[in-house]
Amino acid sequence: MADDVWLPSLKTATPQEGFDLAVKLARVGVKVTQPSAEVRSSLRAAYDHDTAQLIASSQVIAIHFQTVAAANNYWS
Amino acid sequence: MADDVWLPSLKTATPQEGFDLAVKLARVGVKVTQPSAEVRSSLRAAYDHDTAQLIASSQVIAIHFQTVAAANNYWS
Amino acid sequence: MADDVWLPSLKTATPQEGFDLAVKLARVGVKVTQPSAEVRSSLRAAYDHDTAQLIASSQVIAIHFQTVAAANNYWS
Amino acid sequence: MADDVWLPSLKTATPQEGFDLAVKLARVGVKVTQPSAEVRSSLRAAYDHDTAQLIASSQVIAIHFQTVAAANNYWS
Amino acid sequence: MADDVWLPSLKTATPQEGFDLAVKLARVGVKVTQPSAEVRSSLRAAYDHDTAQLIASSQVIAIHFQTVAAANNYWS
Amino acid sequence: MADDVWLPSLKTATPQEGFDLAVKLARVGVKVTQPSAEVRSSLRAAYDHDTAQLIASSQVIAIHFQTVAAANNYWS
Repeated sequence: MADDVWLPSLKTATPQEGFDLAVKLARVGVKVTQPSAEVRSSLRAAYDHDTAQLIASSQVIAIHFQTVAAANNYWS
Repeated sequence: MADDVWLPSLKTATPQEGFDLAVKLARVGVKVTQPSAEVRSSLRAAYDHDTAQLIASSQVIAIHFQTVAAANNYWS
Repeated sequence: MADDVWLPSLKTATPQEGFDLAVKLARVGVKVTQPSAEVRSSLRAAYDHDTAQLIASSQVIAIHFQTVAAANNYWS
Repeated sequence: MADDVWLPSLKTATPQEGFDLAVKLARVGVKVTQPSAEVRSSLRAAYDHDTAQLIASSQVIAIHFQTVAAANNYWS
Repeated sequence: MADDVWLPSLKTATPQEGFDLAVKLARVGVKVTQPSAEVRSSLRAAYDHDTAQLIASSQVIAIHFQTVAAANNYWS
Repeated sequence: MADDVWLPSLKTATPQEGFDLAVKLARVGVKVTQPSAEVRSSLRAAYDHDTAQLIASSQVIAIHFQTVAAANNYWS
């Protein structure tokens, strides 16, 4: 992670690209805690059929989307 | 998802349409984690009778509604 | 839901009416996920004696109250 | 609830009184979902020895304290 | 609690002291729900080895830190 | 903790360094509740293979990232 530039800016051209960025931020938040792609892949079945965890994932995206939207002045 | 424009703007005419948009954002947040409509449909019974998950869904909507309301300057 | 105007404005006369509106928003967030009043009614016993869910409900209200309070400039 | 004025203002003289108000708001959020004082009292043992629920209660207070603090311009 | 002044101000000299204040606010949020120091002490083993509760505690601190940071204009 | 300066500023050069700081803040929030590095290490296996806790960790990071991003005026 330390070597890559994966977050050069919070600015996006459209709200939809901002939402995509929020999804990315939520995923990176998981990666920093569990850096092994192999382990994350093996865990995937444990949550993508678990509605409680799907809702929780959606919540993390929502929090990041607040940040990205504010950074873009809500694309107004 | 990548091909459709589903979020052209955070602006809505009324608070109520803003709430509808918040509901949509919450649902898309689930879709990006579980893209299969078939799987999501099969999971539906698992949460729409589970009050804890209904409350959690309501919370995600609430977070998105904060964003949409701010984007619309609270429709003032 | 689509036919009714249930959210004409976020403005309220007093903080207390703003809190009532936050409660309403939290409840509508549940209704959009479980539209059946009959099912919601049957589920009621499952959560109104479950303190964890009562606290979770209070949290959703708190998030909406943030939005309503900001929309009213904190009634200052 | 409807008959009492329990929230005339979000303004408080000090941060500490603001925290007390946040505690009150969190409790009212539970009361509106479970209006029976008798039931709430009977449930009390179920959560005041459950650390997960104590932490969840603390979180609801934290969210309301954000609102009250903003309403008071952080008592600056 | 009512007799002590434990929160005279949200202002702190540094971000780090602001973080300490956020920790304090999170703990007071637990104390107001479970005022008995003896009970809280007996419960301690139930959560300080439970990672889910450690993460939840960290979340409450994060919410309070938002408030404290805003109150200090982010120490800029 | 009290002896080290670990949080001299919320300012970072880039959004990505801001995200790293959010990760750090989330971890310190756990450390203040469970100060023993030995215990934390022994607990690690309990959560880094538990997707619900990985998502919860990501959420705490998201909340702190809101704070750090605001402190940096979104690096605009």
